[in-house]
Amino acid sequence: MVEIDVNKVKMAGDYIRYLAIECIERSQSGHPGLPLGCADLGAVLYRYMLRYNPEDGHWLNRDRFILSAGHGSMFLYGLVHSAGYKLGLEDLSAFRQYKSRTPGHPEHEPEIGIETTTGPLGQGFANAVGVAIEGKMMAARFNRDGFPLFDYNVYTIMGDGCTMEGVAYEAASVAGHLGLDNLIAIYDSNDITIDGNTSITLSEDVAKRYEAMGWQVARCDKASDLQDFYSKMKQLVQAKGKPKLLVVRTTIGEGLDKMKGSHKIHGSPAGLDEIVYFLQHSTMRPVAELAYGAEVVDDPARLKDAEAKRIAAKEPPFAHPDATMFVREAWQWNGEIYTKWKKMLEEYKGKFPADYERLMKLTSSAVPASLKEKLLAYKESKPDATRNISGNVLALCCEEMPQIVGGSADLVGSTKATVKGSQYINRDDFRGRNIAFGIREHGMGSIGNGLALNGVLMPFTSTFFTFLDYMKPAVRLAALMKIKHLFVFTHDSIYVGEDGPTHQPIEHLNSLRLVPDLVTFRPANDFETAFAYLYFLECKGPVVILGSRQNMPASAYEVTADRAGLYAEFKKGGYVAWSNGDAPDVILAGTGSEAGLAIDAAKKLAAEGKKVRAVSISSLELLEANQDQKKKLLGDGKTPLVMVEAASHRGMSAFYGSNVTLIDIREFGLSAPAEKVAEHFGFTADKVASRVKVALK
Amino acid sequence: MVEIDVNKVKMAGDYIRYLAIECIERSQSGHPGLPLGCADLGAVLYRYMLRYNPEDGHWLNRDRFILSAGHGSMFLYGLVHSAGYKLGLEDLSAFRQYKSRTPGHPEHEPEIGIETTTGPLGQGFANAVGVAIEGKMMAARFNRDGFPLFDYNVYTIMGDGCTMEGVAYEAASVAGHLGLDNLIAIYDSNDITIDGNTSITLSEDVAKRYEAMGWQVARCDKASDLQDFYSKMKQLVQAKGKPKLLVVRTTIGEGLDKMKGSHKIHGSPAGLDEIVYFLQHSTMRPVAELAYGAEVVDDPARLKDAEAKRIAAKEPPFAHPDATMFVREAWQWNGEIYTKWKKMLEEYKGKFPADYERLMKLTSSAVPASLKEKLLAYKESKPDATRNISGNVLALCCEEMPQIVGGSADLVGSTKATVKGSQYINRDDFRGRNIAFGIREHGMGSIGNGLALNGVLMPFTSTFFTFLDYMKPAVRLAALMKIKHLFVFTHDSIYVGEDGPTHQPIEHLNSLRLVPDLVTFRPANDFETAFAYLYFLECKGPVVILGSRQNMPASAYEVTADRAGLYAEFKKGGYVAWSNGDAPDVILAGTGSEAGLAIDAAKKLAAEGKKVRAVSISSLELLEANQDQKKKLLGDGKTPLVMVEAASHRGMSAFYGSNVTLIDIREFGLSAPAEKVAEHFGFTADKVASRVKVALK
Repeated sequence: MVEIDVNKVKMAGDYIRYLAIECIERSQSGHPGLPLGCADLGAVLYRYMLRYNPEDGHWLNRDRFILSAGHGSMFLYGLVHSAGYKLGLEDLSAFRQYKSRTPGHPEHEPEIGIETTTGPLGQGFANAVGVAIEGKMMAARFNRDGFPLFDYNVYTIMGDGCTMEGVAYEAASVAGHLGLDNLIAIYDSNDITIDGNTSITLSEDVAKRYEAMGWQVARCDKASDLQDFYSKMKQLVQAKGKPKLLVVRTTIGEGLDKMKGSHKIHGSPAGLDEIVYFLQHSTMRPVAELAYGAEVVDDPARLKDAEAKRIAAKEPPFAHPDATMFVREAWQWNGEIYTKWKKMLEEYKGKFPADYERLMKLTSSAVPASLKEKLLAYKESKPDATRNISGNVLALCCEEMPQIVGGSADLVGSTKATVKGSQYINRDDFRGRNIAFGIREHGMGSIGNGLALNGVLMPFTSTFFTFLDYMKPAVRLAALMKIKHLFVFTHDSIYVGEDGPTHQPIEHLNSLRLVPDLVTFRPANDFETAFAYLYFLECKGPVVILGSRQNMPASAYEVTADRAGLYAEFKKGGYVAWSNGDAPDVILAGTGSEAGLAIDAAKKLAAEGKKVRAVSISSLELLEANQDQKKKLLGDGKTPLVMVEAASHRGMSAFYGSNVTLIDIREFGLSAPAEKVAEHFGFTADKVASRVKVALK
Repeated sequence: MVEIDVNKVKMAGDYIRYLAIECIERSQSGHPGLPLGCADLGAVLYRYMLRYNPEDGHWLNRDRFILSAGHGSMFLYGLVHSAGYKLGLEDLSAFRQYKSRTPGHPEHEPEIGIETTTGPLGQGFANAVGVAIEGKMMAARFNRDGFPLFDYNVYTIMGDGCTMEGVAYEAASVAGHLGLDNLIAIYDSNDITIDGNTSITLSEDVAKRYEAMGWQVARCDKASDLQDFYSKMKQLVQAKGKPKLLVVRTTIGEGLDKMKGSHKIHGSPAGLDEIVYFLQHSTMRPVAELAYGAEVVDDPARLKDAEAKRIAAKEPPFAHPDATMFVREAWQWNGEIYTKWKKMLEEYKGKFPADYERLMKLTSSAVPASLKEKLLAYKESKPDATRNISGNVLALCCEEMPQIVGGSADLVGSTKATVKGSQYINRDDFRGRNIAFGIREHGMGSIGNGLALNGVLMPFTSTFFTFLDYMKPAVRLAALMKIKHLFVFTHDSIYVGEDGPTHQPIEHLNSLRLVPDLVTFRPANDFETAFAYLYFLECKGPVVILGSRQNMPASAYEVTADRAGLYAEFKKGGYVAWSNGDAPDVILAGTGSEAGLAIDAAKKLAAEGKKVRAVSISSLELLEANQDQKKKLLGDGKTPLVMVEAASHRGMSAFYGSNVTLIDIREFGLSAPAEKVAEHFGFTADKVASRVKVALK
């Protein structure tokens, strides 16, 4: 066992602490509690444990570190800065400011060591389970004797909040079931949450609970005993067969004077007095003395004044070369590992050319031309339920794209979302491409996000559409991160029938459309389903494909135009599915099963002498974004338009037919002071007035 | 310990089994697996354990039975029929048919012993935790020495699915923390889920996990040993200090021939051959012989034929007076208990008149006139964030309505949703009105639903609006059940600021509006906040009140009209907040903070000579439902209208300004064959064509 240099670790830890309280003071917003409590642990991880290369954030075999307790973002920013990632003191100084690289919660950016977006509690932990599964899958596919191409570990820190969230439980249960021994979770157990001591809410034996889920659990009863922490971590990392949890008793706000151990330090700036105390009493003292002079540091009033001035002048936080150089010593051993790995890959290429080829194919996201051709030409022999068609199309895609893996929440038989001919992964064999997530929709969604994070695997996850509700937080994060995660939701409306209202999604379709950067397709037939898959394969973000329980109306299959042309229209939001003349009396539009219904109704009206156009809307949000296409399909606003959709439009339809200008929000928000965010999105009286004047013209 | 009559229990159990497979065969839809596996256990519960009165489903001190695994609905229907609730064989025979009283999943109807709506897994279990908390709260408030007015127990059956769901974990952890010894969960452990054996997904030691959460756990390794089951249950019921779990090893499809133990029986009809086998080999044989004759029952082919004919003729299932009379023997002891309780209440009234008065007040849902007056007149001294105003208004309501209880998911300090001056409930003292739910949004939502089910307590639950996503399934079920659960979500838009996009709700506002039977308010000022609370207190379903993080614009407070009149407008969806003339050049409308913004912009435009009206929309869905009010506020469609709202309208806004007729869905679905449901909602070609013709007129 390596002896770690505890003093230097504490120095590096104190620097993280300083950066946290200093930058949070600057922004007057943030969460110092976790960075203060865990700083030393982080320094151990980045100096002695994690394998990484700050110059190559996408290194396929890097160890991953995920801060599940994302509110402690300054912990992560301080660490990746110390470790040498390209995140400078100016970036840290702009913590939580408009368009800075250090937003309030960490946002997915592997280039600087941010592996995933966290903040909504439990999500990072569940992502970590997905990343660990990916590691196992890659190892099972590519590792050869003497060539451990993929043997990375996934580390995550979770707090009491993550522990309590159901999604973390679900993911932990999956991890235990699969025996993910490349996953090491650190539970920052400090007995404090926002509202006070955990004794008001939590009386579990968390360690025992994780053991019951098949985890190996160890404890550090004193976070300050860093050699003990390191030894326990090392033992856990080396243990085989189970995911591991280290319960570390930390003290929130460690290093502060009055706020140490208090819930008040969880989410509020420590204040200048505490910063002064910290500079005086921590290993940061020499740094402060160098900058301010010893006599200033000796005098709390003068030190406070000096700090206040420094912050007001927006000077960056202190550099601390001794601390950062210490952490960056990790490169001494990591550089060797990295170079070795690169060399190993070269040798692998020579020795296992077919495997190497497979690896290259797997890590390329290009859609094979042959597959694209098949998808464009896709045809079913007879009308069917789109869930069945979806299963068939998915099978086609899986044949040619080995990076597609996924599964469902115990509904494969219903959603048909499976990699045909492949097995389920299990604790002894990860070669399969199917994942049995169990009845754990939320865990599934977040594990799926973890699988997608690396940009190599293209996961799909699947359940009944009504259970979108159980996993919405994961869908939202997929959109926010723009990761390639395919959500296949079936039984997409009232046609679920006998299972009744709990199983009939009504509000779900439009609620998905509202999510920025997410595209939702509700295919009406065979080619729309194939096109939706093609769109997913070609695009750069998450996609939802809805499948029906019931057969689609036959009329929906009768469109005869050229397929490439149709796909171009599909991507713009829809196409004319049937028409009996160019200047229609009425336009009928629908999605999914109601597209067919619109066609059937149009034919009936045509038989009565009406001129009718029936439109299939592939994605309402795409159509809305393509105004020309919208005009082409839905008319100029004069021709009566009838929209048929077995889904709720409650609320918004108040504006249907109104002469309305809308000032709303179409992108995810951003981290900055509220006034700045409001201004960015145009929510000021002046900007609104200007928009009104435009509307009046 | 009472010896139970095992033979008669099995007879009653077989009748439940028969009803299940027979009615599911009739509807060709349903889940026989659980009813077959658990039938005998159910018979023990309803004959020997549960305290209930089929004539008084609302009896305040009844034991509750909640079938969390709601897909096994025929189990529950068979039991409440056997127990004497007003659910006849004709009702059972119409299982899953249009407008029957026996929908696919149980729907909240205490009159017939259906305590809550279940189906989405884990929800019933979490509801049960809420009902158990209510029991403890009522006991702490009203029980006196010798007067145990409230000592009911809550029983629930959960399957592997419920066990795996995160919401059940969250709720179980709360139950353990609070030591809810009036809660007894039966885990129907049959190793089978829809996709196959649980070995592919679940390798937890569930018992150990529950122990780690503070539960007392016992095991029945053979469900067929009913005396053992009864004894274990009795011991558990009597044990004090912890919630209890009985893990029962059952066999899915028990009683069948080939499908016993198979995942195929989980959710598909057993088929006539299995029904024939069952009638021949179970205690149902004499019943079948009486109907068909022994020689027919002896001959599988003839019996099958007879059954087929009976089903085709839609004759009701067999009555089995011996079985139902046996279960109804429960009335011999339950009647005594019920009468005693009624008498106890009378004596209580005499002996503790003040307490009795308090109980009457608590169980009345009427809004005190004095409170209504205060809410109508409510005024803050200066502009504030609506989350603060909400906290103040809630305090007012709590003062006069003791039935209001609730809490938040570790964000009381932020959402301000608390009963001021009251303590948190804890395992030793349930007199408090505040509940610390921990960082368990989903559990909170479902426990809140449990608290609301009885119609006595009026719970509120609260978190950041962005975390609605974590608890949406509970919000949906509150709407579906039309129960009085107040959701207070704060930090309602981008103005969250520094916490960034993960914490800034964008799509959430409109996604709530889409939910049938739910009203969402986004108040703009003091009186709108007070009105929203008043609306909740007066209405009959769930309400969402959104609160801002930031102060509302001062202009939003300046409306001077009479308050009663304003409230009338508020209830219709909105009011004119500012105007400088009757025939405006432009109408600005907004909600919440943007209502103030609209007023500010209107004033700017007015200063430039424009005639402007600014409208505050209290609830877009209410305004949409009140077309006259909509026209009055938003104009006739000719005056330009500008809608300002810091929320996504993506997708639907494609239709803003179009001449569109919408055929969509505004109610929750229903349980019936798909074609019937489609017809009910107007989704047939004929009905669509008719609507189009109306639109063309």
